[in-house]
Amino acid sequence: MGKYVYLFSEGNSTMRELLGGKGANLAEMINLGLPVPDGFTVTTEACNKYYDDNKTISDEVLTQIFDALDKTEKKLGKKLGDMTNPLLVSVRSGARASMPGMMDTILNLGLNDQTAEVMAKLTSNPRFAYDSYRRFIQMFADVVMELPKSEFEIILGNIKQSKNVKLDTELTADDLKQVVLQFKAFYKSKLGVDFPQNPKEQLIEAVKAVFRSWDNPRAVYYRRINDIPSSWGTAVNVQSMVYGNMGDDSGTGVAFTRNPATGEKVLFGEYLMNAQGEDVVAGIRTPQPISHLNEQNKSVYEQFVKICNILENHYKDMQDMEFTIERGKLYMLQTRNGKRTAAASLKIAVDMLNEKLIDEKQAVERIEPRNLDALLHPTFDVNALKNATPIAVGLPASPGAACGRIALSAKRAAEMKKADSKAKIIIVRLETSPEDIEGMAVSQGVLTARGGMTSHAAVVARGMGTCCVAGCADLKIEHDADHFCIGDKKFVEGDIISLDGSTGKVYNGAIPTVDAQISGDFGVIMQLADKYRVLNVRTNADTPKDARVAVNFGAEGIGLTRTEHMFFAEDRIQAMREMIVADTLEGREKALDKLLKFQRADFEGIFRAMDGRPVTIRFLDPPLHEFLPQKEEDIQVIAKVMGITADKLHQIVDGLHEFNPMLGHRGCRLTITYPEIAKMQTRAVIEAAINVSREGIAVHPEIMIPLVGEVKELKYVKEFVDQTAQQVFTEQNTTIDYMVGTMIEIPRAALTSGEIAQVAQFFSFGTNDLTQMTYGFSRDDAGKFLPDYYDKKIFESDPFARVDQVGVGRLMKLSVTEGRETRPNLKTGICGEHGGDPSSVEFCHRIGLNYVSCSPFRVPIARLAAAQAAIKYPRK
Amino acid sequence: MGKYVYLFSEGNSTMRELLGGKGANLAEMINLGLPVPDGFTVTTEACNKYYDDNKTISDEVLTQIFDALDKTEKKLGKKLGDMTNPLLVSVRSGARASMPGMMDTILNLGLNDQTAEVMAKLTSNPRFAYDSYRRFIQMFADVVMELPKSEFEIILGNIKQSKNVKLDTELTADDLKQVVLQFKAFYKSKLGVDFPQNPKEQLIEAVKAVFRSWDNPRAVYYRRINDIPSSWGTAVNVQSMVYGNMGDDSGTGVAFTRNPATGEKVLFGEYLMNAQGEDVVAGIRTPQPISHLNEQNKSVYEQFVKICNILENHYKDMQDMEFTIERGKLYMLQTRNGKRTAAASLKIAVDMLNEKLIDEKQAVERIEPRNLDALLHPTFDVNALKNATPIAVGLPASPGAACGRIALSAKRAAEMKKADSKAKIIIVRLETSPEDIEGMAVSQGVLTARGGMTSHAAVVARGMGTCCVAGCADLKIEHDADHFCIGDKKFVEGDIISLDGSTGKVYNGAIPTVDAQISGDFGVIMQLADKYRVLNVRTNADTPKDARVAVNFGAEGIGLTRTEHMFFAEDRIQAMREMIVADTLEGREKALDKLLKFQRADFEGIFRAMDGRPVTIRFLDPPLHEFLPQKEEDIQVIAKVMGITADKLHQIVDGLHEFNPMLGHRGCRLTITYPEIAKMQTRAVIEAAINVSREGIAVHPEIMIPLVGEVKELKYVKEFVDQTAQQVFTEQNTTIDYMVGTMIEIPRAALTSGEIAQVAQFFSFGTNDLTQMTYGFSRDDAGKFLPDYYDKKIFESDPFARVDQVGVGRLMKLSVTEGRETRPNLKTGICGEHGGDPSSVEFCHRIGLNYVSCSPFRVPIARLAAAQAAIKYPRK
Repeated sequence: MGKYVYLFSEGNSTMRELLGGKGANLAEMINLGLPVPDGFTVTTEACNKYYDDNKTISDEVLTQIFDALDKTEKKLGKKLGDMTNPLLVSVRSGARASMPGMMDTILNLGLNDQTAEVMAKLTSNPRFAYDSYRRFIQMFADVVMELPKSEFEIILGNIKQSKNVKLDTELTADDLKQVVLQFKAFYKSKLGVDFPQNPKEQLIEAVKAVFRSWDNPRAVYYRRINDIPSSWGTAVNVQSMVYGNMGDDSGTGVAFTRNPATGEKVLFGEYLMNAQGEDVVAGIRTPQPISHLNEQNKSVYEQFVKICNILENHYKDMQDMEFTIERGKLYMLQTRNGKRTAAASLKIAVDMLNEKLIDEKQAVERIEPRNLDALLHPTFDVNALKNATPIAVGLPASPGAACGRIALSAKRAAEMKKADSKAKIIIVRLETSPEDIEGMAVSQGVLTARGGMTSHAAVVARGMGTCCVAGCADLKIEHDADHFCIGDKKFVEGDIISLDGSTGKVYNGAIPTVDAQISGDFGVIMQLADKYRVLNVRTNADTPKDARVAVNFGAEGIGLTRTEHMFFAEDRIQAMREMIVADTLEGREKALDKLLKFQRADFEGIFRAMDGRPVTIRFLDPPLHEFLPQKEEDIQVIAKVMGITADKLHQIVDGLHEFNPMLGHRGCRLTITYPEIAKMQTRAVIEAAINVSREGIAVHPEIMIPLVGEVKELKYVKEFVDQTAQQVFTEQNTTIDYMVGTMIEIPRAALTSGEIAQVAQFFSFGTNDLTQMTYGFSRDDAGKFLPDYYDKKIFESDPFARVDQVGVGRLMKLSVTEGRETRPNLKTGICGEHGGDPSSVEFCHRIGLNYVSCSPFRVPIARLAAAQAAIKYPRK
Repeated sequence: MGKYVYLFSEGNSTMRELLGGKGANLAEMINLGLPVPDGFTVTTEACNKYYDDNKTISDEVLTQIFDALDKTEKKLGKKLGDMTNPLLVSVRSGARASMPGMMDTILNLGLNDQTAEVMAKLTSNPRFAYDSYRRFIQMFADVVMELPKSEFEIILGNIKQSKNVKLDTELTADDLKQVVLQFKAFYKSKLGVDFPQNPKEQLIEAVKAVFRSWDNPRAVYYRRINDIPSSWGTAVNVQSMVYGNMGDDSGTGVAFTRNPATGEKVLFGEYLMNAQGEDVVAGIRTPQPISHLNEQNKSVYEQFVKICNILENHYKDMQDMEFTIERGKLYMLQTRNGKRTAAASLKIAVDMLNEKLIDEKQAVERIEPRNLDALLHPTFDVNALKNATPIAVGLPASPGAACGRIALSAKRAAEMKKADSKAKIIIVRLETSPEDIEGMAVSQGVLTARGGMTSHAAVVARGMGTCCVAGCADLKIEHDADHFCIGDKKFVEGDIISLDGSTGKVYNGAIPTVDAQISGDFGVIMQLADKYRVLNVRTNADTPKDARVAVNFGAEGIGLTRTEHMFFAEDRIQAMREMIVADTLEGREKALDKLLKFQRADFEGIFRAMDGRPVTIRFLDPPLHEFLPQKEEDIQVIAKVMGITADKLHQIVDGLHEFNPMLGHRGCRLTITYPEIAKMQTRAVIEAAINVSREGIAVHPEIMIPLVGEVKELKYVKEFVDQTAQQVFTEQNTTIDYMVGTMIEIPRAALTSGEIAQVAQFFSFGTNDLTQMTYGFSRDDAGKFLPDYYDKKIFESDPFARVDQVGVGRLMKLSVTEGRETRPNLKTGICGEHGGDPSSVEFCHRIGLNYVSCSPFRVPIARLAAAQAAIKYPRK
């Protein structure tokens, strides 16, 4: 026998999990002696029980509800359905985490034909009584019975027309009685039963409806986006009604203790006299700023300000409150920590720290790491955006705002940039491939029709800090066509569009952007984060430019340099192709020799940019066919350039074809077939390191061998690395320190970490591939069926965005533990996309990694997330 | 300080790991008081040390060798290089497991210019002395210095020509002296140094050469095929020479205590008088059958027979021996357990059991399970094979022998069968795909140019028990061409070829085959196996025919019925395609309704064939695109048949395209998108089960949901299964028992087994996919780079053939343990290809599975392997 119902007076703010945020805070306000209408909370456990019991409310819970109702009635001296002093209540959802607007609310419950009449008399305000009744019928029908609200609006509209009035407020009490009659008739015609007159029946149906609303599609979606587990459930708050629409001495409003947009310490909000909450939202009358209340009702205003101070000091955070004034008496209906912009969150945290309201750790914990993203990219001018209508929506794959001229191929983008170095370009593709890298690099934004949040376009764009909208299904485009369509509109090269990578919206024409401002508060918080975090934060960067951006954002090293991105540049891919088509070792070595000087120069640039910080360089990873042309016409052209027959090139391309390239001949498997590639890359790394160290810059290269699944693979490759390094040392008559380690990105590598650590000096978790293989999902293909998984609540979050701690995470933890048993000082890090995801950063902290590595624009997020993790889970 | 060298008198037969098989048995024979020339063994640990020490023999080992040499010399009163009584020795390899002919041997070591002359005088046989010397030079040059033997043969040939003789034996002592001179001159001209005259130097170089031969390519290959780890190393046996070529009272021979071809209990072997071992092998003179020795030298023969009996009784197994008679005295040079045919192994085991030489368990342990394979398939007539030369060699992908007319497509194969129901067909394809199933089913054999031992062709052929040669690179064939070439020869449809699926050889024309005989001994051994095994043995079967074959071979149930194979038949694929192209649920259900009656009939057939045994049915697994045409012309044709435009069909085919289909939308992921498929399949299973059980046959269906990685997937699908089953029960007014379980084939499934077992009633390890994902290898692609892995000793066995116990096996073990923690009576089995591999069966026994399931023709192998595992590792 559990306790499923709590009177407000029985709860407090620590009972959030059980009572939900709203319920816990209502109870806490009562404890603080603040004026809160009485009531009770049906717990989140009752919600879960409701679902477990096949969507029924058990007798046990029913009994407790009616018991709480009874106590509330006694306290208030009112009774649900009473003919002399009827109690009316609101029934509202309230989950553990705030989910504004996602679930349902019913007001004025308890009204029926008789109590409406009693209320009319009691308040001497029949208009008020019948207005409340018709609102209740409409709300109940909508929320409980799923009769569309709009149908009631039509009935109301017809009556207004017949009465020749425009506003609801112009309807008289009699008019509203007629509305009630027609609403009830419509209700019966649609549902075959009368509108329920029994207030207890109304109550139970309303509670059930709120429980059900936990699982409505928008709530499910909101939870997924916000990482809220469906197992939490929602509580239901049943609270006696107070009315702001009882005349000019009544009113209702919402307010924040500080400005939620800027963080400024000033009471912020608005109210309307003689109104109910809905009216404030509906915008029929213009609300007054909260400061105006001082003039209208000084004593209530002063009481309210006092309450605001009490609440902010009590919760030590900016509060978002709802209140009602009923006939001159102030009631608090809700308080919660207020949502705020990223900039406001920084200012509020720093201000409260200075006010000594919170301490440094609390200041760090106050900032939602992912929100920082908005501070790091350009954004659209807010005013300009007001007048713009999106023409299409895709996935918000890489944040920021961009506007520019359309280029339909990487080649064209490069040409447009060459023709005008100031050209702003948006590259639009069916999907991108590694060959598009250069074109993406010169573009302001990337728009693709296919692919998910971890598609090639999305990953590369995030890495570059370039705005990207991916998987935009509204976009009709053929491979290499000279145009695309959105709806009926045809776009050609040179047309201007704008992309919002933070919302996924696409606009026709140019919308001006503003550069991001990093205010002083940002710096303060970042310094505090660095003070408390234990994890190092590195970046994934393939170019000196990326490396510099990341260092500016606080990166302490590079966790992943993908050497293959360097091979796609026009001046290199030719040599790469020569290597691939060579029949002999000599031929391959000759071609590799051409690549050596490019690679060495690339590494020199990166080492200089990182200025003494460690740099992890991953050796060649992708399958060789990615470097060869696939299309007939390209094969013809490139064969000619290479001086071989098209047939021969065809044969090579066909020979490299793989059924599942993700599981094919790539990573260290290439090096095992062609050790000469590792030799060349080692030479490039070591020579570059020596050259740069001779300039007086410390260099710490960490050579990373990808896709190892068996220690002998690593051993085999490492021998070539060490031999080559030794050879360069001899030639150059000097040495430098370097490390050789591996990615842990194959389940078998994790499972044999104890053996692999005998050879590897460091592990870096490649969680993209590790997730793919642990789940057996290809991230290029999973986008097609994962939506079904979310709809059917099989997955609640995207395993490619957030480390799956149960499966993938178990392998990571095991790997760290067993790797360190073999090599106690084993350095461990993560370089998958997850390295910039706050919840994954927390997990990495908990399993004891040394560092996380993420794209440059995520470095501040990772720093903050790492600090929060360290505060939450202090390492022994 | 280890002991690296043992005198023969210091060893015994239990020291096989250290002394190798040959060394341990020589020592044991000495212990038994048998006449064995003295000597010593350099251990396998010395071999490993040699490799660890960068291929050098350490001073420690050198000292021990010379010490043992010294003791041997003292015992024999002879001395290496001595000018009055020189010791000559043989230097032979000897690994823990017999690897006949794979490593090197040097005879007559100790001869140099001086000792040759001494030997000439001592034996009064200068011809013998110089013949031995020239053989030694040639052997030493070949084995130690890698000078090709053939070059010495040319010199010898020239001298014979100049002397105008044909046989070596016709050369005089002086001729042979000249040969020696020319051999030494050639040796110096090629190597720049004199042939070593110091016998100790000869000895050490010979020992090193034997160590090196452990790693020659043919030894490496042999080890891989026979699962011998490279870490075992070889021992080296140094033994004083005895000579069978000292006159007519001398001789040499080999013999088996029983007939190794038939198992008959009769001394079997041959010998040559006045000859050395090489001569017996060389075939210049025809050896005598061993029984003839009784007439030639009765006392030696009787001594030999006595020794044979002693050895067989001692080792309790059939022995394979080498002996030499030197001037009337018998010496034993080797004994070992003799290799034998599968049939012989059965007869010998049963005979020895009856002779009470061994007990039942030993009889079971005596049979190499994989050898049984040869007894279960047709084979080529041995005599016919003698005159046939293979025209190409591929991988021996599915055993058996087949000859028939070439069909170049599945369609043609079916047509040829239709035209003549007795037609023998060999289907020849670039590679096969699921669409080829019907064509394969009507063929005697399958030949493909591409794909490995676990390619589609190989897996399906093994499942069908059809002979298959896969990945035959000599075969030049284009997709859908009307011919193929092997070398210069062109083959067209209707030409006759023969395939040997046990050797991978392809022959032109017809070679007659003989059906396999299962002798009574086979039955005896299988009964014993069943008595001792704990594991159940099931079969993978998709048709009633396969099911019946498997039951005849002793299958106790079906572990895997792949329902999709049923969908490829011509009368069904149409409905399947209708389902795929349907836009609506109704459209899909209509198409599925057509499939229902086929599925139900299929299941009825299988249930009847299995007659009360459990049947595991896997629901639809492959991605939908496998059911659609891919080629332009097929799309055109099929679109017309389906009454949709080719454009529409194109769009659907393109929409289903996946980058990595192995990691794509398949298995339970399909059912999550289209639960109606699972509903139809459940209805088919349950209705079939009810129908067949009404015939009085017990039915135990086990519904298996593939590709689960998260318990919620299984839960979601199981709800539809249970609902549908309930519905059928209501309709039919009866119930039957059924189970719902899952494949464990995704690493995450193994890692979350504790959760999955809350829903799954059984686990079946799909080790094909589990291996793919744990390693991150696609088996369709790995064939291209795995050869490099074997060459470079990164892998020693094919993880798709033999369970990788370290990685994949760890997941399996963890899964069984954690699954059973949740559900103690969880039924567990394996249905991957590994289920028929003896070492994998042993592993499955050890981790406590309930059953293994394999293709019908592997059932007897699995039964035997399971028994051996149970004997070796008794379950508590």
